[in-house]
Amino acid sequence: MDTTGTSKKNSVGIVDTRYFTFERLDFRSGKTLSPVTLAYETYGSLNNNKSNAILIAHALSGSAHAAGYYSEQDTHPGWWDLYIGPGKPFDTDKYFILCSNVIGGCSGSTGPSSINPETGRPFGLDFPMVTIMDIVNAQWHLIRHLGIEKILSIAGGSMGGMQALKWAIAYPEMVNSVIAIATSASLSAQGIALNEVGRQAIMNDPNWNDGNYYGSKGPDAGLSLARMIGHITYLSEKHMHEKFGRRFKEEDLATASFKQAFMVESYLHYQGVKFVDRFDANSYLYITKAIDYFDLKKDYGSLHNAFVQVLANFLVISFTSDWLYPSAQLKEIVQALRANGKNVMYTDIETDMGHDTFLLDYEPLKRNISNFLKREFERISRT
Amino acid sequence: MDTTGTSKKNSVGIVDTRYFTFERLDFRSGKTLSPVTLAYETYGSLNNNKSNAILIAHALSGSAHAAGYYSEQDTHPGWWDLYIGPGKPFDTDKYFILCSNVIGGCSGSTGPSSINPETGRPFGLDFPMVTIMDIVNAQWHLIRHLGIEKILSIAGGSMGGMQALKWAIAYPEMVNSVIAIATSASLSAQGIALNEVGRQAIMNDPNWNDGNYYGSKGPDAGLSLARMIGHITYLSEKHMHEKFGRRFKEEDLATASFKQAFMVESYLHYQGVKFVDRFDANSYLYITKAIDYFDLKKDYGSLHNAFVQVLANFLVISFTSDWLYPSAQLKEIVQALRANGKNVMYTDIETDMGHDTFLLDYEPLKRNISNFLKREFERISRT
Repeated sequence: MDTTGTSKKNSVGIVDTRYFTFERLDFRSGKTLSPVTLAYETYGSLNNNKSNAILIAHALSGSAHAAGYYSEQDTHPGWWDLYIGPGKPFDTDKYFILCSNVIGGCSGSTGPSSINPETGRPFGLDFPMVTIMDIVNAQWHLIRHLGIEKILSIAGGSMGGMQALKWAIAYPEMVNSVIAIATSASLSAQGIALNEVGRQAIMNDPNWNDGNYYGSKGPDAGLSLARMIGHITYLSEKHMHEKFGRRFKEEDLATASFKQAFMVESYLHYQGVKFVDRFDANSYLYITKAIDYFDLKKDYGSLHNAFVQVLANFLVISFTSDWLYPSAQLKEIVQALRANGKNVMYTDIETDMGHDTFLLDYEPLKRNISNFLKREFERISRT
Repeated sequence: MDTTGTSKKNSVGIVDTRYFTFERLDFRSGKTLSPVTLAYETYGSLNNNKSNAILIAHALSGSAHAAGYYSEQDTHPGWWDLYIGPGKPFDTDKYFILCSNVIGGCSGSTGPSSINPETGRPFGLDFPMVTIMDIVNAQWHLIRHLGIEKILSIAGGSMGGMQALKWAIAYPEMVNSVIAIATSASLSAQGIALNEVGRQAIMNDPNWNDGNYYGSKGPDAGLSLARMIGHITYLSEKHMHEKFGRRFKEEDLATASFKQAFMVESYLHYQGVKFVDRFDANSYLYITKAIDYFDLKKDYGSLHNAFVQVLANFLVISFTSDWLYPSAQLKEIVQALRANGKNVMYTDIETDMGHDTFLLDYEPLKRNISNFLKREFERISRT
């Protein structure tokens, strides 16, 4: 699948998104959707005994497009292209990599912007409340459709890590191993608060119109602001300082206005505006709620109980400067797994880059994933 | 001044806000305002040699009403009533306490909601950009009007601490001592970013109307959201966890909506709505900008240079769980002062309560202030 273009070296090359539609999904809320479509991409080849499949679970703003390019002219690879490809940690010469857009999303999977067959109009807020369990159950249909009975590894950062944990708990027989990065068994009160101010930014926008904005101008300003708030939490204070410091964009007090004076403001605005082009505001509401509601402790009585039935081996990774999903939350997961006698590799990676470290070209993270997968692939190949 | 009501025990009692108008203020931006009014309150009595005056400098959302009650029926004392009163750290039996609303504010001092004499309409965004230096210069007029030549101490937390530092630098002969709490010589990039998303929440509100909303419905939703964002930063992750955890307000997924599901969301909304009743959105824009622009390093070449001319003694206090004004920023101030041979008492107070610790009933903070002031009052009384 490699392309010849130099810019696409070490890449899975040109890819396209596929769509799988299945008959019905029963949501945890008690509601049902029918039919349901998942957008997905695959990289590498499934081996004969179907033992080399890795499911990549994306975070809040991700999509099925985890690696590669859509065309020769495309200069923006998939969101985890640094980690997925020939010779990369998720080595497409060895493994079959699969990534699907979450249910409730806006990048090809059924979500609030999809047409409600009952009304012929987009769902908007008539879409069922989504949970991580619902996201995992939708992925289960896709995995079965592809004929995979056991997944070599399920990997994800942030909300992707929540899905990986849930998979191992809900479908223990199907999950050989889990790579859970910068995630949590339940978001902190501070995390919920930060998600809520993001949602409020969207819902305050008059163009949101209770979620009925499809076909007219959407709540762009609100969604952009939600993204700006999010971005602050994805970086560490130190990284923001190193990246922007207090450098000015416009310094003169005599002409100063309430436009952005500092570089850091300008950066956030750019991130916000860019996001509006590719994301649906209602999906932002639904997916942040799925994150908020995720709570393994509450759902299983305790974190210890949650992991009792788990059969997978675990690689758990936290980042020292991640204040959205602090290391203590990952350590809690590791302790509960070990108390259950599970096999866990844990690393608290020293970094100033904050939560988003998992999306960056970071050698210690690459090495950890690479070694863990190698070991797990050898293990599954022996059985 | 003590009242007889039990609820007002240890209080300065019933107080009223006074107003001082002076002819003209030249802003750092080069613009001028004329006339200028400051709202202020005083508690206790100025002694004969006028050596017991303490200036309290308020933070972003504060006002001149730092202590006492407006009436017998009033149940909400001034914002620092826990610290100001008979027998309290700012002991009104000994000291003459003065607090004024900042220029640009909305609680009686001239600000963007005041009438512009040139147009007969509220200033709105025609108000000059405000800096901490402008705030201090306005206070200088009030101090001189009261006949005070040397201030026993200038005390403030957060933006109040910035004013205290600036006073000691700009008017060294007038400042005997400084109490700088949970503040910074220059806000971090992360702090600027958080202020900017708050401002953006206001400016995104269509009722903001480029600042021209006086006389009609203002940007209440935007201001409320800005306050919600602020409140997240005033608490620590741990304190939020202890205060709210993941307790639900509404738990049932079947009936769940995008209204607040968790207690922490409900708390933030309450804080936001309450704020709108007492604060002006344009003042929020101006005062957060004053905080952003404050930069002693840039203004004086280095923090060391900033403190060369300073004559005051310092009490500097940081809180271990304050992530908005982290201890490292206070330590930087302490180091620069000590490198200049200044007399500094510094305490990094262990607390889980975050930035807002300075507003809470916190014994270690009370003791530090009390002891420092006692020492400083003895020192000034000897000279």
